[in-house]
Amino acid sequence: MIPNVLAERYASPALQAIWSAEGRIVLEREFWIAVMKAQRDLGLDIPQEAIDAYEKVKDQVDTASIMERERITRHDVKARIEEFNDLAGHEHVHKGMTSRDLTENVEQLQVFRSLQIIRDKSIATLARISKRSQQWADLVITARTHNVAAQPTTFGKRLSMFGEEMLSAHAAIQDLVDRYQVRGLKGAVGTQMDQLSLFEGDASKVAALEKSVVAHLGMPAVWTNVGQVYPRSLDFRVVSALTDLASGPSSLCKTLRLMAGHETASEGFAPGQTGSSAMPHKMNSRSCERVNGFHVILKGYLTMAGGLAGDQWNEGDVSCSVVRRVMLPDAFYSIDGLYETFLTVVDQMDAYPAVIAKENAHYLPFLMTTTIMMEAVKAGVGRETAHKAIKEHAVATVNDLRTGKVSTNDLVRRLADDERIPLDQDQLAAIVATGERNAGAAASQIVAFADAVSSLASAHPEAANYQPGGIL
Amino acid sequence: MIPNVLAERYASPALQAIWSAEGRIVLEREFWIAVMKAQRDLGLDIPQEAIDAYEKVKDQVDTASIMERERITRHDVKARIEEFNDLAGHEHVHKGMTSRDLTENVEQLQVFRSLQIIRDKSIATLARISKRSQQWADLVITARTHNVAAQPTTFGKRLSMFGEEMLSAHAAIQDLVDRYQVRGLKGAVGTQMDQLSLFEGDASKVAALEKSVVAHLGMPAVWTNVGQVYPRSLDFRVVSALTDLASGPSSLCKTLRLMAGHETASEGFAPGQTGSSAMPHKMNSRSCERVNGFHVILKGYLTMAGGLAGDQWNEGDVSCSVVRRVMLPDAFYSIDGLYETFLTVVDQMDAYPAVIAKENAHYLPFLMTTTIMMEAVKAGVGRETAHKAIKEHAVATVNDLRTGKVSTNDLVRRLADDERIPLDQDQLAAIVATGERNAGAAASQIVAFADAVSSLASAHPEAANYQPGGIL
Amino acid sequence: MIPNVLAERYASPALQAIWSAEGRIVLEREFWIAVMKAQRDLGLDIPQEAIDAYEKVKDQVDTASIMERERITRHDVKARIEEFNDLAGHEHVHKGMTSRDLTENVEQLQVFRSLQIIRDKSIATLARISKRSQQWADLVITARTHNVAAQPTTFGKRLSMFGEEMLSAHAAIQDLVDRYQVRGLKGAVGTQMDQLSLFEGDASKVAALEKSVVAHLGMPAVWTNVGQVYPRSLDFRVVSALTDLASGPSSLCKTLRLMAGHETASEGFAPGQTGSSAMPHKMNSRSCERVNGFHVILKGYLTMAGGLAGDQWNEGDVSCSVVRRVMLPDAFYSIDGLYETFLTVVDQMDAYPAVIAKENAHYLPFLMTTTIMMEAVKAGVGRETAHKAIKEHAVATVNDLRTGKVSTNDLVRRLADDERIPLDQDQLAAIVATGERNAGAAASQIVAFADAVSSLASAHPEAANYQPGGIL
Amino acid sequence: MIPNVLAERYASPALQAIWSAEGRIVLEREFWIAVMKAQRDLGLDIPQEAIDAYEKVKDQVDTASIMERERITRHDVKARIEEFNDLAGHEHVHKGMTSRDLTENVEQLQVFRSLQIIRDKSIATLARISKRSQQWADLVITARTHNVAAQPTTFGKRLSMFGEEMLSAHAAIQDLVDRYQVRGLKGAVGTQMDQLSLFEGDASKVAALEKSVVAHLGMPAVWTNVGQVYPRSLDFRVVSALTDLASGPSSLCKTLRLMAGHETASEGFAPGQTGSSAMPHKMNSRSCERVNGFHVILKGYLTMAGGLAGDQWNEGDVSCSVVRRVMLPDAFYSIDGLYETFLTVVDQMDAYPAVIAKENAHYLPFLMTTTIMMEAVKAGVGRETAHKAIKEHAVATVNDLRTGKVSTNDLVRRLADDERIPLDQDQLAAIVATGERNAGAAASQIVAFADAVSSLASAHPEAANYQPGGIL
Repeated sequence: MIPNVLAERYASPALQAIWSAEGRIVLEREFWIAVMKAQRDLGLDIPQEAIDAYEKVKDQVDTASIMERERITRHDVKARIEEFNDLAGHEHVHKGMTSRDLTENVEQLQVFRSLQIIRDKSIATLARISKRSQQWADLVITARTHNVAAQPTTFGKRLSMFGEEMLSAHAAIQDLVDRYQVRGLKGAVGTQMDQLSLFEGDASKVAALEKSVVAHLGMPAVWTNVGQVYPRSLDFRVVSALTDLASGPSSLCKTLRLMAGHETASEGFAPGQTGSSAMPHKMNSRSCERVNGFHVILKGYLTMAGGLAGDQWNEGDVSCSVVRRVMLPDAFYSIDGLYETFLTVVDQMDAYPAVIAKENAHYLPFLMTTTIMMEAVKAGVGRETAHKAIKEHAVATVNDLRTGKVSTNDLVRRLADDERIPLDQDQLAAIVATGERNAGAAASQIVAFADAVSSLASAHPEAANYQPGGIL
Repeated sequence: MIPNVLAERYASPALQAIWSAEGRIVLEREFWIAVMKAQRDLGLDIPQEAIDAYEKVKDQVDTASIMERERITRHDVKARIEEFNDLAGHEHVHKGMTSRDLTENVEQLQVFRSLQIIRDKSIATLARISKRSQQWADLVITARTHNVAAQPTTFGKRLSMFGEEMLSAHAAIQDLVDRYQVRGLKGAVGTQMDQLSLFEGDASKVAALEKSVVAHLGMPAVWTNVGQVYPRSLDFRVVSALTDLASGPSSLCKTLRLMAGHETASEGFAPGQTGSSAMPHKMNSRSCERVNGFHVILKGYLTMAGGLAGDQWNEGDVSCSVVRRVMLPDAFYSIDGLYETFLTVVDQMDAYPAVIAKENAHYLPFLMTTTIMMEAVKAGVGRETAHKAIKEHAVATVNDLRTGKVSTNDLVRRLADDERIPLDQDQLAAIVATGERNAGAAASQIVAFADAVSSLASAHPEAANYQPGGIL
Repeated sequence: MIPNVLAERYASPALQAIWSAEGRIVLEREFWIAVMKAQRDLGLDIPQEAIDAYEKVKDQVDTASIMERERITRHDVKARIEEFNDLAGHEHVHKGMTSRDLTENVEQLQVFRSLQIIRDKSIATLARISKRSQQWADLVITARTHNVAAQPTTFGKRLSMFGEEMLSAHAAIQDLVDRYQVRGLKGAVGTQMDQLSLFEGDASKVAALEKSVVAHLGMPAVWTNVGQVYPRSLDFRVVSALTDLASGPSSLCKTLRLMAGHETASEGFAPGQTGSSAMPHKMNSRSCERVNGFHVILKGYLTMAGGLAGDQWNEGDVSCSVVRRVMLPDAFYSIDGLYETFLTVVDQMDAYPAVIAKENAHYLPFLMTTTIMMEAVKAGVGRETAHKAIKEHAVATVNDLRTGKVSTNDLVRRLADDERIPLDQDQLAAIVATGERNAGAAASQIVAFADAVSSLASAHPEAANYQPGGIL
Repeated sequence: MIPNVLAERYASPALQAIWSAEGRIVLEREFWIAVMKAQRDLGLDIPQEAIDAYEKVKDQVDTASIMERERITRHDVKARIEEFNDLAGHEHVHKGMTSRDLTENVEQLQVFRSLQIIRDKSIATLARISKRSQQWADLVITARTHNVAAQPTTFGKRLSMFGEEMLSAHAAIQDLVDRYQVRGLKGAVGTQMDQLSLFEGDASKVAALEKSVVAHLGMPAVWTNVGQVYPRSLDFRVVSALTDLASGPSSLCKTLRLMAGHETASEGFAPGQTGSSAMPHKMNSRSCERVNGFHVILKGYLTMAGGLAGDQWNEGDVSCSVVRRVMLPDAFYSIDGLYETFLTVVDQMDAYPAVIAKENAHYLPFLMTTTIMMEAVKAGVGRETAHKAIKEHAVATVNDLRTGKVSTNDLVRRLADDERIPLDQDQLAAIVATGERNAGAAASQIVAFADAVSSLASAHPEAANYQPGGIL
């Protein structure tokens, strides 16, 4: 059999269990049993022994047998009904139900439980990023804009920055979980006609049945007005939220790949792992690259989800069927694989202070030109004049470094020698030196992030302590 | 000049005003003035007459002059600073600010105000759909799944179904508005170093300045840890929410296009409008098609937004710049054009009860087969036997209608003639007749939708009463 | 194990064989053997008995053992080298090769062979569409624009229209196959340094080796300047061509779903198949809906491909790895599943002349208004006057039909009664009657399409005669 | 008026002229005149003076007047007919034509001419890249995989690599141009009924008319079987080809942004341009970032194009209308802006040999480990032993550099000191030194690329010599 590579190589057992054929069939059978029990409690003639018989066999899942039946009937739900009935020796499941009364609700349950797992993993990740951020709170690095040295910051601040992006996406996914609406038992076109007919028109019984079924599913809300299907924009919203949640990790990993190129940091190695066999010095950012790959994949599934939303004809059809069979599990496997990989990256990543210090020393005189200018202005020179002088020397220094005319950054000396700048070498060196310790408000920003994460982790201690599995 | 077709043909004046070059420049100048006032209040030496001078000229926008400056400096913000300074005759704007301290905040203001307008339009739309849904609450139509007749429902219920999808998207966009975070004054790499320097390291003054600026902007939340830019996943979340909000209208319009093909309903005409000139009988669903077109467009802008999220290098750069110049305004023009068009559709649409009745009569015997089977089972026949008999006759009737062997649906007569079915022609006809009045729980579902919309509209009366402009 | 649902439910055995883990490993081993043979022929010391030993075990594929090795080395290629070496009892494979020298070429071989299969399936499909088009060449139907009756055409013409779209996409994919470039043996960064080193700097031997290897692969062209990887825009071009090739089938299926709603045609049933069990009259367009679903899926994989193209950093990395593991096989499984399904649709589809005739009769008077106007003008009335009169009556007739005031289309009588129209009832009826036989140039257009397809099928008889497998 | 930012800020005058409202209207009028002339030649009664009158006013374009008419008729083509007729004082245009007979053909003409311009710009770009590639053919740089130093290559080779990707995309767009099919005069539903009626059923005259019209348009091929519209997969193919053509520039620019981060190269400055005003040392990769931005934008328009393809209902409708109004011009403006920017980058980019040499010196010992191992094996040591020893020392050296234990790469000394490696310091230094001159087959690869570009440029000298306009 050809395996689902996302499930088998990258996803965690918890996600595999939800989306496997076996897992889904058990969810369906539990759903049918819940419906039967509720129907019986509301007066339908369903004997307890039948329910017991179904309960007893519900975990006996033989996918080959079911597929055999489907090849004959060309109807997947019918095949699963027949299998379950034969196993139990009764014919009480699926009363007054249409296929979608089963499949929509069970698929939404798969989605909902997966959302909760991913939401929890985002908490685990935030907790770790916050820890790392505090670890490197004082490690001053050269911040870059346009990939070019710009001003000092700290490595901890850089991590908090991507962490806060994740925090924002976490809040959005929590909103989604809190509002998630299940379709319920609505019948073939959404009017509940068949359940009403089963209960001889007693709308209160139909309402009670649905309430009971939703309680079984454990979801926070129910759609009232649907057709054969619930609106596919809900699936779109889900996949969009997953893609959103991949953005922070993706940016952090891209930045770590850039830092690895400068050897200022790396994603690290697992204990015992080494670099490429042909080039042992190489510490390749394979896991970070994989995180970026998963982000690309998720955007593909989002395109699929977007192709279904807003395309409902009348009360619905199954043009979404093959798409959802692929997109829903695969999007969840992808975000799950992304988080498993990313948690490993955050656990194993490393920074190299010696290389960082060298980089800082090289760039600091340039980075501090804004401050030098402000100080020069305070010392009396006109802003335009100071700007012009600094610019001339900065550009000349850069050019001389690039052509090899000088081998170390001598901007401070050049400025000290220029009469337009009313600051001497010591004063200038002192300004530059402040940069080594001065990352502005970085420290307090990190604290703010840590506080937010800390509240979240306290509220979800189990989620915060999740340990990822080993990755390939 | 080549116009922006989305802005000029489709968007409303309110959106045009927010995103026009002129509108944006005024927002920027107001922002600069707000910063100057706060800086002065916190002790910087900015004379009141300078602020007055800026205030006086802030609405004098000459885009050609600014573009002229930009062609020289190749720096858009610099060009706008120079222009404003020259107009006012002072040089106090942009103190301690980096370009992004201006542009990020102002662009977020454009986004935020646009989001509020669209959020309000979704309320206006919901109010109208609810009204239409109640108008046609009792008009029984033939519900379709797989585009084929399935069971009875009502036209009102069908509208409520798409309306409830919009209600769900409305709640999601409201969550987004409630949590929307602005970048604030964070400096070149996010550490607030330049403002700290300006206030000689006094962090409390920098915090007070930012607080004051955010109050000016009127946004609910502020990022703490950012780089040069705020995370582009926030833009992604915005465009995704707009796309989500387009889904309900898109499905409703697709369904209306299908109904127009059966002449059971149409998007109607504006007073005085007529059909195609060559084929005057044609009532083309041009506006519905346009709504579907806008939905396709939005998904394209979402792809652009997805291409920026998760792609931040270090503290950021401007690879997002040209994308956001296009994507942000154009996505808002598109959703605005969609809603202007859709409001018109909802206002002008019409249903044709005579044609609907004909369709119902043709299909009802088929649609009621589930009920017939249930009644036959109640009358004593085995489920399998009844199913087999009904299936034989239904399929034969369909085939005879398709080959022209019969010209009207005579399924009832065939079933009455079959001994396996213990129901006579009168009983069967009575069952079929119930279908004409029986759309299950449709009526109460419509009421539930109407109640939800009514609450929303009461809370936002102005939004609910919005009148769309004329459309092309 | 969790199966790949696209492979297992929808794809044909030929595609499964190419992309299965086992199939790929055999392709790799054959590639290594081809390299060894060429290296030996060019003078490297590789004993024949080693090559024989590798040949002997090349089909012994134990994926579990390989995965076990990968979990230790965390390097997939290394795991496969070790497995093959251990099986053969030699260590001669992969000489002077880097991982990508193996994987790029083998993956391109998978892509290339899959492209050829799909190209051939498009020929099989065209042959069938042409046959169907000729079968229904004279069946006049009511053409629709905006989903509303417009003018007469024939069902054969409608099919040729979608067929010609496919013909155009077929030509594009053939261009792609004809130009397809393989990476070849280029070494770790594309400079062939390791092979040059192996052959002691002898560039002619390295060139001969590559030539030999490309001959083994059977591909038409080779890249010269690459890095570690070949440009991912080539993958993008491939997935784009597949998506392109899905467009014609998707439009035809959408149209068939629309026709099924009017009961003028359907996708038909397999022998023995019947409709939905609860609603036996329903002939659901499940397969057409599935084709549309596959099209949506392909657009998702195209987004993934687009996310890789244009994102090469330096000489390349593996951020594309997880994406290509998913996107390449799954895109091919999807287009393959689409064509298997679509071939079945084309084989089983049916048209219902009696219903079509009824529809034509209803609409013909409207459809012929253009002709009526032209004839009226020829008979002397002014164009504007004729237009005005026809429009008034057409609109009135439509309105009366919709409100139930009249039950059949009486436009001819109304026009005959209007003095402005210088044509009597017989003349008008004669004009309308021509519509029933007159579909303009439809007949000759169908012939042109049939001729083009016929040439193609003659050139590829085996492809044209392909029989699809059974579908679910 | 709100401008189209892509057109006004980034696109060249040639593209603006094709897609401006004025440009399009003139193309339409020329098309109508061509049709009238052909109709007259084929016997229709159209006086020469009418044709002369139309010719005379064809360039008098008053878009405001046309828009005024459209607001009344709500029909854009009708508005343009009336305007042209009123200007000329005749009513002979648009005979036997439906709106799409005009708009499809003219829009395809816009697409076709734009494609040719972009195709030509890709030639201009290739010529420049080849020149740059030859300029830096011998400049050895440190090739990177995973963004980490891997093996030596040359800067020229790196440029050729991205150039060859463009060459491949160029061939694909040329195929597209060569096969581009125009819709022709096919009437309301594609059957040419109205033109046949106009020519009293004379099919040969209708064929002659179409032939004449296609000759006027200058396109290579014509569709035979179409409906109201030509298949939208052709638009998809066009936008896909543009996206494809953006991939090489995008990868080159991303790599240049990375190199700028290491100061080994930069996109350079325009004469007189300087860095950021606050940080004058910064040579920001603004233009490269813009190129990457355009690539993101194009993928968004591709999503829009993908949303239209495969979505034709029956003979077509206008759900594509608003999408194509946006997507087609904006996609062309984007690729044009991308090429204008990219040409400037290629013209102004610079490399910094002094910095490059420093980087090479730092990495060469690592990069040459593969060669060292091969030489060690030749000198008698076992492969595994050599690999183990080299790996130990390489990893130790890397670690010591990162922790600051050593400040220069002393791997050669460490290997010389290890008894397992049968090579002394001089031998090892000599091997490392070869790396400085040895970029494998890079030189000959560059020549192959230069030859291919040279042939292309010779065949299209005007295209090759195109000079881009100034960019912002």
